Amino acid sequence: MPKLWNDTIETHRREVRQAILATTAALVAERGLLNVTMSQIAEQAGIGRATLYKYFPDVEAILRTWHGEQIAHHLAHLTAVRDRATGPAQRLEAVLEAFATIAHSSRGHFDTDLVASLHRDKQVAHAQEQVRDMVRDLLADAAEAGEIRGDVAPAELAAYCVHALAAAGTLSSKAAVGRLLVVTLAGLRPISS
Amino acid sequence: MPKLWNDTIETHRREVRQAILATTAALVAERGLLNVTMSQIAEQAGIGRATLYKYFPDVEAILRTWHGEQIAHHLAHLTAVRDRATGPAQRLEAVLEAFATIAHSSRGHFDTDLVASLHRDKQVAHAQEQVRDMVRDLLADAAEAGEIRGDVAPAELAAYCVHALAAAGTLSSKAAVGRLLVVTLAGLRPISS
Repeated sequence: MPKLWNDTIETHRREVRQAILATTAALVAERGLLNVTMSQIAEQAGIGRATLYKYFPDVEAILRTWHGEQIAHHLAHLTAVRDRATGPAQRLEAVLEAFATIAHSSRGHFDTDLVASLHRDKQVAHAQEQVRDMVRDLLADAAEAGEIRGDVAPAELAAYCVHALAAAGTLSSKAAVGRLLVVTLAGLRPISS
Repeated sequence: MPKLWNDTIETHRREVRQAILATTAALVAERGLLNVTMSQIAEQAGIGRATLYKYFPDVEAILRTWHGEQIAHHLAHLTAVRDRATGPAQRLEAVLEAFATIAHSSRGHFDTDLVASLHRDKQVAHAQEQVRDMVRDLLADAAEAGEIRGDVAPAELAAYCVHALAAAGTLSSKAAVGRLLVVTLAGLRPISS
């Protein structure tokens, strides 16, 4: 087969896969994991049931893949935000703001059982570690520049930041998330002796 | 039967029950939920298997009861700590410190699957709400007294506090928990204009 044809097939497969993932995420968010069937997903995604099974064995597998891609996407976003900002304090603030925004917009998508199950995934634990490491390094840079307090180790401050900002998932407005960021950053301020 | 005899039976029952709960919590923490049997619990608690089944149907039921009692105990402790302190700022600080200490000492008791399962309990959600409400009221008092910032609603600050201090569960030393408390309280400080 000519290369062009292979490319077309590859593109098509990718598009079908993305349609399945997006459709499933929307249906599960709307109805709950137990109320979504493979047939419904196939119908909504505009493909045959047999085709759907060529891509994924069951609803949970689709959702895990979707969740994994979301996480990868969030990590890439945080990295891009970090690399776009200049100066230690600005980089730190930009990443923490992006993190809070992610926590806020991910809230209440799915029921608690499902979230607990997805979050037990090793992949998620690894991603959380990566975020914490990124924040820790930004805090170390900011502390060295004298922009934040230097009396607490960056790793401990990172634990504080990601936990405090996770509260964004319980807040109902973007304004409240902004205030949470202000309060969290206030905890990091250099100590005036 | 004389009243005294009834009291003795009641006391005995309570003691057996507590022995079962404590034994089960210790065994599950050591071996994991799936590796603990009712026979082992009976043996370690020094009672017969038949007696054990008169109290609880299975290991999970025992653990849920134990967890519920832990939560009730934690809530009572926070309330006592609050009522012992005088002055809005002192009360707030004492309760937040006690909360962080609980989060720290509860860390890593059980494997993640089990914790997730216990935490999906309605009772736990209700207890978390009670803690958040208590912290919110203390924050409102402290804000009114001008001891903490007044630009953010107490309910939002409460979400910040309990999330930030939950990081104590990831910290390895009491000293680190103390530093977390200092940082979290720094976020609450009144704004110097």
